[in-house]
Amino acid sequence: MRQAGRYLPEYRRLRAEAGSFQRMYKVPDYACEATLQPLRRYPLDAAILFSDILAVPEAMGMELNFLEGRGPVFAAPLRDSAELRALVEPEPEEALDFVMQALSLLRAELGVPLIGFAGTPWTLACYMLQGAGSQDFQRPRTLLYAQAEVLHALLERLSRVVAACLAAQARAGAEVLMLFDSCAGWLSPDHYREFALSYLARICRSLKDCCPGIPLIVYARGSRGLEADIAACGVDAVGVDWTSPLAAARRRLAGCAALQGNLDPCALFGSAQNIRVAVEATLADYGPGTGHVFNLGHGIHRDTDPGKLAVMIDSVHQLSRSYHSR
Amino acid sequence: MRQAGRYLPEYRRLRAEAGSFQRMYKVPDYACEATLQPLRRYPLDAAILFSDILAVPEAMGMELNFLEGRGPVFAAPLRDSAELRALVEPEPEEALDFVMQALSLLRAELGVPLIGFAGTPWTLACYMLQGAGSQDFQRPRTLLYAQAEVLHALLERLSRVVAACLAAQARAGAEVLMLFDSCAGWLSPDHYREFALSYLARICRSLKDCCPGIPLIVYARGSRGLEADIAACGVDAVGVDWTSPLAAARRRLAGCAALQGNLDPCALFGSAQNIRVAVEATLADYGPGTGHVFNLGHGIHRDTDPGKLAVMIDSVHQLSRSYHSR
Repeated sequence: MRQAGRYLPEYRRLRAEAGSFQRMYKVPDYACEATLQPLRRYPLDAAILFSDILAVPEAMGMELNFLEGRGPVFAAPLRDSAELRALVEPEPEEALDFVMQALSLLRAELGVPLIGFAGTPWTLACYMLQGAGSQDFQRPRTLLYAQAEVLHALLERLSRVVAACLAAQARAGAEVLMLFDSCAGWLSPDHYREFALSYLARICRSLKDCCPGIPLIVYARGSRGLEADIAACGVDAVGVDWTSPLAAARRRLAGCAALQGNLDPCALFGSAQNIRVAVEATLADYGPGTGHVFNLGHGIHRDTDPGKLAVMIDSVHQLSRSYHSR
Repeated sequence: MRQAGRYLPEYRRLRAEAGSFQRMYKVPDYACEATLQPLRRYPLDAAILFSDILAVPEAMGMELNFLEGRGPVFAAPLRDSAELRALVEPEPEEALDFVMQALSLLRAELGVPLIGFAGTPWTLACYMLQGAGSQDFQRPRTLLYAQAEVLHALLERLSRVVAACLAAQARAGAEVLMLFDSCAGWLSPDHYREFALSYLARICRSLKDCCPGIPLIVYARGSRGLEADIAACGVDAVGVDWTSPLAAARRRLAGCAALQGNLDPCALFGSAQNIRVAVEATLADYGPGTGHVFNLGHGIHRDTDPGKLAVMIDSVHQLSRSYHSR
């Protein structure tokens, strides 16, 4: 998940200076500074680039705006195959040069691994078709039933672009690559395999070829029960949200991939004692041994007290020791 | 799911005459007429009362408005235990007299079983705390971690009110009772058992006592994998959304309850041929035998072509025969 954000006063100051959310990820100095802010406050084990998954469709020619209180909104959501054909397949080093520059700057400064990322084809398609976040993502689901071949064409094109974008991030300095599938939960398992995982598998194959040895993490929201299917795409770690119990997911993965997650970010609104209890429950759910990357199960809420995140991180460091040594 | 709705031109005419959505469910003649409209068009096997789950919190003293394009919005979402204590526990026959009158009117007219319904305590609590539909339901999830005892107190109170409301509906003529848990998917399985299913079990016990023999159906959105837990509350049928495969759910239920669902309502935007294929896939997923109530996996979208729903219903009648005889 994004580590920086409005819950940090220093982020809000930087955001005011930048003038817009888009400048925060498009101006390498701002993206670099936003990435570093959480690292200065917290003893984190890795850094994730400050950016946005929708920078990719933007680079493909879709006008994107970030509206106060509404989040990202495309000026003209994709409607048909003619509009799909009009999308460009950008050279990431050119169209997303700001991403690559931010990664290079960060790599020189950081003492922890640097994570680059992109949205999965299915999740990007959801936003490009719906035009914005949604309580039902009716448009992509409709296209699936009405014109599956158009959806497949879009997903295929996105797969090429996402793979190229991630490979470029690896060349620019990213040491781990992550794919965010925040719309995974809108599909039935069969459709998830057909419209999401088949494209994810292509991207993984392509990255294993061109960037051998680089770990791949896929976060899939709403994927309870499907962890082994995701791992089978060639993924090194599967990230899950707070509704996927880690113990069952670990059994299903059977050592094929590590597991990342999954504290409910709303747990950070509890007392320090409640946070410790929730962290302990997450660690106990995974159980003893290695292969667990502790993380929130979704993005941190903007009204979170930064001190509560410190309590969580401190609890993880203290309480996880006994799980590693067992 | 609601059978009537804006996808029907006759509904839109009735809605214009009523002047507001609230009058549609609060004036028994309108509620009755809206309930009957889909029955006049389609050969349906049952009718579900036209009403709204939020009529219950409204009867408990919360001001509710339906805003164009936003749906239901509470004027003042619940904030603390003082506001919780200020809620009234209404006598359903008085506070929801319009529901009971509509049921009585319908029972006299209908030739098919009549379904009464209510929201589950957890789902009602989500709306009462959040104040409206949401992409994250942050407020109820926060209360769960910050003040679990306040959430439990609210859920306990709602359980009494919901059980009383459903019992009154049975007395007024409902022959089947249904509970909608559209917010089930926001909780981890452990929390779902603690904050949702324990209260559902109380309601089921209470109804089995006071209305023996009346079938209970629970629809739980986002409950993949938890069907047996839901059935164990004393439910006769479990309704699932399109992301819960019926075959796996049926195996887990092992005959303890029937299964209702689960065609994605977006499938109705496909061609007639695609709709037939999707219906066949749903029937095949459940497989031969009895115990399947065909239904949509969520509410019908307002821009659905009524003719497409006819195609779906016709396909179900034609294609399901071979599954019953096997």
